[in-house]
Amino acid sequence: MAPSIHDILTEKRQGRAHSAESLAVLVSGVVSGEVTRAQAAAWLAFAYVQGLSSEETALLTRLMTESGEVLSWDGIEGPFIDKHSTGGVGDKVSLILAPLWAELGVRVPMISGRGLGHTGGTLDKLESIPGYRCDLSKTELRDVLQDVGCFISGQTGEVAPADRIFYALRNETCTVPSIPLITGSILSKKLAEGIVALNLDVKVGTGAFMKTLPEALALAESLVEVGNLAGVQTRAWITDMNQPLGWAVGNAFEVEESVDCLRGEGPDDLRELVLALADHPDAEEVLSSGAAFERFVRMVEAQGGDARVLDTPNAMRGSGARAETVLAERSGWVACCDALTVGEVAFRLGAGRLQASDPVHPGVGVFVHKKQGERVERGEPLATLWAVNGAGDAAREGILAAYEISEQAVAVPDLIVTRVEGEPS
Amino acid sequence: MAPSIHDILTEKRQGRAHSAESLAVLVSGVVSGEVTRAQAAAWLAFAYVQGLSSEETALLTRLMTESGEVLSWDGIEGPFIDKHSTGGVGDKVSLILAPLWAELGVRVPMISGRGLGHTGGTLDKLESIPGYRCDLSKTELRDVLQDVGCFISGQTGEVAPADRIFYALRNETCTVPSIPLITGSILSKKLAEGIVALNLDVKVGTGAFMKTLPEALALAESLVEVGNLAGVQTRAWITDMNQPLGWAVGNAFEVEESVDCLRGEGPDDLRELVLALADHPDAEEVLSSGAAFERFVRMVEAQGGDARVLDTPNAMRGSGARAETVLAERSGWVACCDALTVGEVAFRLGAGRLQASDPVHPGVGVFVHKKQGERVERGEPLATLWAVNGAGDAAREGILAAYEISEQAVAVPDLIVTRVEGEPS
Repeated sequence: MAPSIHDILTEKRQGRAHSAESLAVLVSGVVSGEVTRAQAAAWLAFAYVQGLSSEETALLTRLMTESGEVLSWDGIEGPFIDKHSTGGVGDKVSLILAPLWAELGVRVPMISGRGLGHTGGTLDKLESIPGYRCDLSKTELRDVLQDVGCFISGQTGEVAPADRIFYALRNETCTVPSIPLITGSILSKKLAEGIVALNLDVKVGTGAFMKTLPEALALAESLVEVGNLAGVQTRAWITDMNQPLGWAVGNAFEVEESVDCLRGEGPDDLRELVLALADHPDAEEVLSSGAAFERFVRMVEAQGGDARVLDTPNAMRGSGARAETVLAERSGWVACCDALTVGEVAFRLGAGRLQASDPVHPGVGVFVHKKQGERVERGEPLATLWAVNGAGDAAREGILAAYEISEQAVAVPDLIVTRVEGEPS
Repeated sequence: MAPSIHDILTEKRQGRAHSAESLAVLVSGVVSGEVTRAQAAAWLAFAYVQGLSSEETALLTRLMTESGEVLSWDGIEGPFIDKHSTGGVGDKVSLILAPLWAELGVRVPMISGRGLGHTGGTLDKLESIPGYRCDLSKTELRDVLQDVGCFISGQTGEVAPADRIFYALRNETCTVPSIPLITGSILSKKLAEGIVALNLDVKVGTGAFMKTLPEALALAESLVEVGNLAGVQTRAWITDMNQPLGWAVGNAFEVEESVDCLRGEGPDDLRELVLALADHPDAEEVLSSGAAFERFVRMVEAQGGDARVLDTPNAMRGSGARAETVLAERSGWVACCDALTVGEVAFRLGAGRLQASDPVHPGVGVFVHKKQGERVERGEPLATLWAVNGAGDAAREGILAAYEISEQAVAVPDLIVTRVEGEPS
C-alpha cells in the first residue's frame, strides 16, 4: 500500500529517510492539492531541520522535474549542455557562453528567467534587442537549436510546478536557506531542459545569495552531488560576487558588454569567468577569434531580433535616460566596490523589478569605471549612472557608499575561488 | 519593534527560545489569520522537532487561554479546583469527584467535553439523565457554583480558539505527540475555568493516549511543571488504563456506577481512584457517608435534570437496548481485560461517536464482570453487552479477544502507578 501523507510526515519528523515511493506520493499530492498547504509547509519544516540526503534530494529533484514539462531533443545530435548561475550583479555570462559553446560544437538549450530584486535576468537583458522573442514555442526552440546550436528563451509550458508550490511555501514559512531544498529547486528546473551536463556558477559575496565561502561550498557540493545522482554531469565553480562582474550593470549595457566579450574584448574578469565556465580547450581561441559573436548574431536573428543594433552604438538603450558621473572624493586604491549596493542602485533606477509583472528600462543602470585593486585619483569618475529624470542623491550616495578607497594598495581578489567536481553516477 | 512571523519562525527553526513577545505575536496572528495556516503548520513542525521549554510552554498556554473566554468567579468564595483526565475507558471519576469536592468545601467549576472515539465524554454520560442541561449560560454557571458548589457543563463562549486552530493543524500535520504541545492544549482549556488548583489523571496503558510509563511520566511532569509555572497549583497521578475503570462502559451505565460510588458502594478501583484524586483527608469518610450523593442530586437538579431517575433501576437507559452475556470459554485467572478493545466494542455498539455531531445511545455499552486478577470458571459471564438489534459476532468476539485467561493466578495490578508533585511558582 502506498504511504499516506501522515506516514510521510511522521517519517521526516522522526528524521528517517524517505523512500522513492514516499517522495512520489508527496510530490504528486502537492501538485494535485491532495496534500494540503499546511501539510506541505510542515514537511518543508521537518525537511529543513532533519535534512534530506543527497539520494533523497536527487529523487525529489527528478520528481519535481517530472511534475511539469520536460523538453526532449530526440533527432538532434547532442551533447546538450547548459550553465546556471545562482545570481549576481552584472552577470551576463549566459549571453556569451551559449553562442561560444554552440561554436565549440555543443548544443545549448538555455531556458532562462527574468530578474527579481537586485539581480538582473537574462531574458530582460536580451529583450533590449528590438524584436528578440523569449516566448519561442517548442517547435521554434527545436528549430533554433538545430540550426544555430543554441537558444536563450523562456519557459514554454509549466516547468516543475511542484517546485513552484514549494518555492512559494518556502518563502512563506522561512524554510528558504536549506541546502537540499535550494538544490532541488535549482536543479529541477534545469533538468527539464533535457541536458546531459550542467556547469554551475555558485556566487559568493555581498551581491550573492550565499554570503560566505562555507555556505557557497556547501551549496556547490550539494548541487554537484545531487546533479550527478540525478544523471546529469554536473560541475560547479565558486566565484566572487563581492563586486559586480564586468563594468556594466543594466540591461542594454550588459548586452553591449557581452558583445564586446564575444568579439574578444571587454573586461578581463568577465572573459576569465566565461572561459572557466566554458571548460573547453578551444574556448579561448574561439572567443578571441570573434567567431562566437557571429553565432550570437545568428541566434538573435533566429529568435526574431534585429541584430543590426549590436553594431550600432546606444541603439539598444531606448530613450529618456541620461548619464551622470559620480566622481571619487579621495585618491587611493579601490578596496571595495560593493556588488549588493551597486545592484540595488541599478534596481532602483529601473533596471530591475520587484514583481514579475513590473516593466524594466533597457537604458538605465550603472557603469563602474573602477574595480577592486585599481588606483583612483580624487575627481576621477568612479561610475556613471544612467537614469530617467535624474539619478537622485540616494543613487549617487549609494555609489559613494559602495566604494571603499584605501590609502594602501589593494590586491585584486581571485574571481574564481574554487571548482567543485563530482563523479557522474 | 514587534517580531514578525518570519523572525518567529526563524527563531524556532534555529532552535532558539521564543520571547513572551514572539509568542504573543504568534498566538494573536494565528487567531486573526495574519499568520497563515502554512506558517502555523511550519511553526508546529519546528516546535515539534526543536522543542519548547517549560517557560515557553507556560507562556504559550496562558496566551492560548487568553485568546478566548476566561471564566471568573469574583464574589464567590473559593478555592476553585478542577480535575482533568487524559482520557480512558469507563472513566467516570469526574461525576463523583465534583460533588465530593463540593461536599468537602471547595468549588468545582468543571467545564467538560463530549466523547470522541473509544473514550467516553462526561457530558454524554450526564445527558443520560432526562433534562440535564450542559449548555448553562455564564450566569447560570455562577448561580449553580454558588448554590451547589460545583457544576459540570459545556463551554459557554469560545474557549481557547488558538488551541482549536493549533489542534486541528496538529492532526493535519502529524505534530500531535509532542509533550509541550499536548501540555499547552490540555492546560489552556482548564486555565480558562478560573481555577487555582488542578489535579490531573494521566492514564497509561492500552486504553490511554500514552501507551507506556515513560511517555506518561514525561507528560505528567510537563503538565505539573507548566501548570505551576502558569500559576495553577498542579499535581498529577499516573494511573493504569490497561483495563476499563470500574465495571461499566457506556453512558447510562457509567452514571449508575457513579451513583453507587457516591453512595459508598460500587467497584473498588473506581473508589480508590476517586479518593486519590480527591487528595483530601476527609474524602473517604464523606464518600462512605453518602453525603456526596446528596450533593450530586442537588447539582443535577440545579442543572435541570430529573434526579428521580438516579433512584429508579434502568430509568436512564432509554429504550431499545437488550442484554447479551459473553461467557468464558475456559477457566483460569484474568490476565488481561484490554481497555482499548472493550472501549472499541462499546463505541461500535453506539456508546461513542466519531464526529461531534453524531448521536450517542445512553443504554448501550459493555459491563465487565471480571477484571484482572479475578478467578473465572468456564461458562461464567465475562461481560454483558447492551445493544440495539443485537450486539453481533464482532462485538462478542471482541470481548473474548479482550480477555486473556491464564492458567496461573495473576496479581491485581496497581491502579495508581505514581504521583507527580510540582512546586507552585
